[in-house]
Amino acid sequence: MKRLAHSGLHLIANLHGVEAGVSVMTSLPACKNLCRQAVKDAGLTLVGESFHDFGEGLGVTGALVLAESHLAIHTWPESGYVTLDVFVCNYTADNSDKAKQVFETLIEAYRPQRVQRIELPRE
Amino acid sequence: MKRLAHSGLHLIANLHGVEAGVSVMTSLPACKNLCRQAVKDAGLTLVGESFHDFGEGLGVTGALVLAESHLAIHTWPESGYVTLDVFVCNYTADNSDKAKQVFETLIEAYRPQRVQRIELPRE
Repeated sequence: MKRLAHSGLHLIANLHGVEAGVSVMTSLPACKNLCRQAVKDAGLTLVGESFHDFGEGLGVTGALVLAESHLAIHTWPESGYVTLDVFVCNYTADNSDKAKQVFETLIEAYRPQRVQRIELPRE
Repeated sequence: MKRLAHSGLHLIANLHGVEAGVSVMTSLPACKNLCRQAVKDAGLTLVGESFHDFGEGLGVTGALVLAESHLAIHTWPESGYVTLDVFVCNYTADNSDKAKQVFETLIEAYRPQRVQRIELPRE
């Protein structure tokens, strides 16, 4: 088995100017389906998840536990703000491209007016 | 209700040189109890969680969804490595001190030989 020590890649985004009417901003099922599908399409492995709905107009939050590490998302429809984290370890394979695919898919789904992206190597 | 816009604080740590014999490194119940207790003691609000056990000697991983955002932890006992993320929004109150309390409690529990800490404001 190829091992790349314990290097990892953490992709962080703060999304601004997201319309409250975007379904993934307020609908837990919509947000959950988006995250699950993005993880699946990228070839990452979901091993657990937890979501919470803060109630009418107050946003949703979720954490997906991956065999390769995690994805976390929080939405604040009242201020058009979303935070996104995609963290993958590269322990047995380089998962960086898969992480970037999930990350960009989610950002695109929220259609933010402005995005602050941070790419943080972890080791 | 006091609102601090959507500023947040993300505390990130990479822990090195953690002994594989430390129970929270390999035992899912021990890791889960540590995280839950630290969140509770700091006065943060757990609204969901998901943990996964990779099997004998292969580490545990967990994500705790908080009303204030999230906590994520991943352990690699085979290389003495742990990653820790504590992210809190300061939407209705400044939760920075609570986040720091959880963060330091968890780092202390792992007794790492070396820690890389990153403090990332998010807004």
